[in-house]
Amino acid sequence: MKIRLKKVTIVAESLLRPQLLKLLSAQGATGHTITLAEGSGSRGVRASEWEGRNIQIDTIVDQATADALMREIAARFFDHFAVIAYASDVEVLRGEKFVPGSPS
Amino acid sequence: MKIRLKKVTIVAESLLRPQLLKLLSAQGATGHTITLAEGSGSRGVRASEWEGRNIQIDTIVDQATADALMREIAARFFDHFAVIAYASDVEVLRGEKFVPGSPS
Amino acid sequence: MKIRLKKVTIVAESLLRPQLLKLLSAQGATGHTITLAEGSGSRGVRASEWEGRNIQIDTIVDQATADALMREIAARFFDHFAVIAYASDVEVLRGEKFVPGSPS
Repeated sequence: MKIRLKKVTIVAESLLRPQLLKLLSAQGATGHTITLAEGSGSRGVRASEWEGRNIQIDTIVDQATADALMREIAARFFDHFAVIAYASDVEVLRGEKFVPGSPS
Repeated sequence: MKIRLKKVTIVAESLLRPQLLKLLSAQGATGHTITLAEGSGSRGVRASEWEGRNIQIDTIVDQATADALMREIAARFFDHFAVIAYASDVEVLRGEKFVPGSPS
Repeated sequence: MKIRLKKVTIVAESLLRPQLLKLLSAQGATGHTITLAEGSGSRGVRASEWEGRNIQIDTIVDQATADALMREIAARFFDHFAVIAYASDVEVLRGEKFVPGSPS
């Protein structure tokens, strides 16, 4: 009953939120969690005061969706925005919460 | 000195906080981290404005505790609340911080 | 194009923030994300009200940097502060964002 899925984590400027959530939805992600974050990265983006101006979006999806999401995010955002994305392995119970139409 | 443990992550409505922390404690988790989160999932729960009305609880435990925690959470909460839980592998130094009574 | 790196997560009192970021930088981490957190751990540290008085710092680095970071944090902070640190596997696209000077 324990199945292995992928968690895709995206950290981006808050402004990109609608575009990112639309992308998640288009790729078939059934849910997400958002936390406020502050980031500093290789593009030199930095919030000198706490502003929570970045968001971290986590979504749990199957491997194929994770790959597609990562590719889309890289293609659309990496060249022009301070966006990072990474995937990690997670184990869930009742995986059908995360995979639309799956009987798993 | 580096040992492999499990991180169990729970995302739930803030209201469930006392119950969830009690459950963690009963299962032998020695610590946790809470962050405010916003979620949207397969139950259609959504915070239209930022309210931080969800919490994300992370706790690092051994494999047996992780399994027990996940099972308990699924059994008690999945049918009635918008709760998700997942486990992932983590490596820690000085694992005794996380496992009560362990000399590791 | 997908490469495997480590995410090191550090949870500590907010006061340690400058020291921790200096340590990350000295070890060659090229970026990080900070979220506000509340923690309770084996040292009995607890925020009775939500104060966000802890921070969670995530940084994505190569394996050697992860090992060095974890060792430094353990050596400098574990005995005197309520600090935890753990590493996990992540997959990223365009890994050069995270590894200085890497052509990957």
